[in-house]
Amino acid sequence: MKQNIYDDNKFFQQYEAIRARENNYNNLLEQPNFLMQIPNLKDKVVLDIGCGMGDFAAYCIHQGAKHVTGIDISSNMITTAKKRHIHENLSFKKIALEDMNAPNGLIDFVSSSLVFHYIADFQLLIKKISSILCDGGMLLFSIEHPIVTANKGDIGWVADQEEKLLHFAVDHYQDEGLRTQNWLVDNVMMYHRTVSTILNTLIENGLQIEKIIEPTPTNEAVQKLPSLHKEFRRPSFLIVRAKKI
Amino acid sequence: MKQNIYDDNKFFQQYEAIRARENNYNNLLEQPNFLMQIPNLKDKVVLDIGCGMGDFAAYCIHQGAKHVTGIDISSNMITTAKKRHIHENLSFKKIALEDMNAPNGLIDFVSSSLVFHYIADFQLLIKKISSILCDGGMLLFSIEHPIVTANKGDIGWVADQEEKLLHFAVDHYQDEGLRTQNWLVDNVMMYHRTVSTILNTLIENGLQIEKIIEPTPTNEAVQKLPSLHKEFRRPSFLIVRAKKI
Repeated sequence: MKQNIYDDNKFFQQYEAIRARENNYNNLLEQPNFLMQIPNLKDKVVLDIGCGMGDFAAYCIHQGAKHVTGIDISSNMITTAKKRHIHENLSFKKIALEDMNAPNGLIDFVSSSLVFHYIADFQLLIKKISSILCDGGMLLFSIEHPIVTANKGDIGWVADQEEKLLHFAVDHYQDEGLRTQNWLVDNVMMYHRTVSTILNTLIENGLQIEKIIEPTPTNEAVQKLPSLHKEFRRPSFLIVRAKKI
Repeated sequence: MKQNIYDDNKFFQQYEAIRARENNYNNLLEQPNFLMQIPNLKDKVVLDIGCGMGDFAAYCIHQGAKHVTGIDISSNMITTAKKRHIHENLSFKKIALEDMNAPNGLIDFVSSSLVFHYIADFQLLIKKISSILCDGGMLLFSIEHPIVTANKGDIGWVADQEEKLLHFAVDHYQDEGLRTQNWLVDNVMMYHRTVSTILNTLIENGLQIEKIIEPTPTNEAVQKLPSLHKEFRRPSFLIVRAKKI
């Protein structure tokens, strides 16, 4: 089942409000680490999966990409992206990757930021990405860290009576599959997969792992958003760069 | 500093007693998953790092290896190994890998079972392994899982008043380095490294990752050793297979 939580209006409005704040986990932690891994995009053909409001797709155009396609299954997102970013070499489509008819071997760079944990069939997703990438092409994605997604229910950490964080909780790590989470609205669906499943699925589909990042914030970022200090105690994200071989 | 805990006689005796039991974590969980990843060893040159009592080295001989060298920094281990396994193509040496003079590019298969978390300089270790492996040669190792080694002190899980396990604890994940643990004797030294550091160090030294395993026990194994059911909730080990490219 393809979840389209971003077309839930309550969710979308709250999501827009969070993203509009400058000091959030995306801007201060995930994106800086993600951007450091993108290749030289000059004259490259790019596909951004789960493009959201299109900011990263537009960034790729500014980096010299020949053409960038951003796809998302949310009408809200695609409508917003089309309003925010207009360029002759940039196109946005409301479609799931699984339903996209892209010729094989023509994409140089596939990116996806914090989307893959919403995808039920990871094997199919990676197989499709591998087939549309050219030889030597690159996949770069970020995902919620399996240490985080493993848990069922809401108990992600333990605090003392004064609400001081004692440690993070991990459980059900090997029990892959659906998790429901209350984030902005109730029952957001996510899929937990282990680190080994994520990486082996890439390898089995002809993608050679080039870099793994469990991002930590800079001191400057922690000053702007003090809760980021928790990232030294447990990573929230996993970023993977892989090459089609 | 090279730790040689296995030459602490109290430790060694207790370790021998555990390993003599048929139903332990090594025999029921780590070894079966490790053995599934070894390549065809016919006529191959093998180095086993931290060979212990030499059982795996001898196994490689029985698999048709041309020559197997087992190294360990513990006199107790090497003495025991030499007594247990005698074969013209099998040699055991009391030496640390860092001090070993092995010609470059001559080893087909480097194995190491539950040793690398004792090594302080992981970068140097992997660099050395990569240099002695032939092109296309394989490294297979198991290590305590970073989810486990991250913690400082002894709080690895939380139980309720009836000692029912509620969840595992994770903390200090990004703080790599020395950990002291009380296992059999006090103050056993281990080194915590993140998943990303472990894998990136391989990649940066020309080792292509082929397989990652976070092993789970079979139902049969859980029947023999019921505490193994906890492995479904948090992995204890990480096994990595990589190829020299």
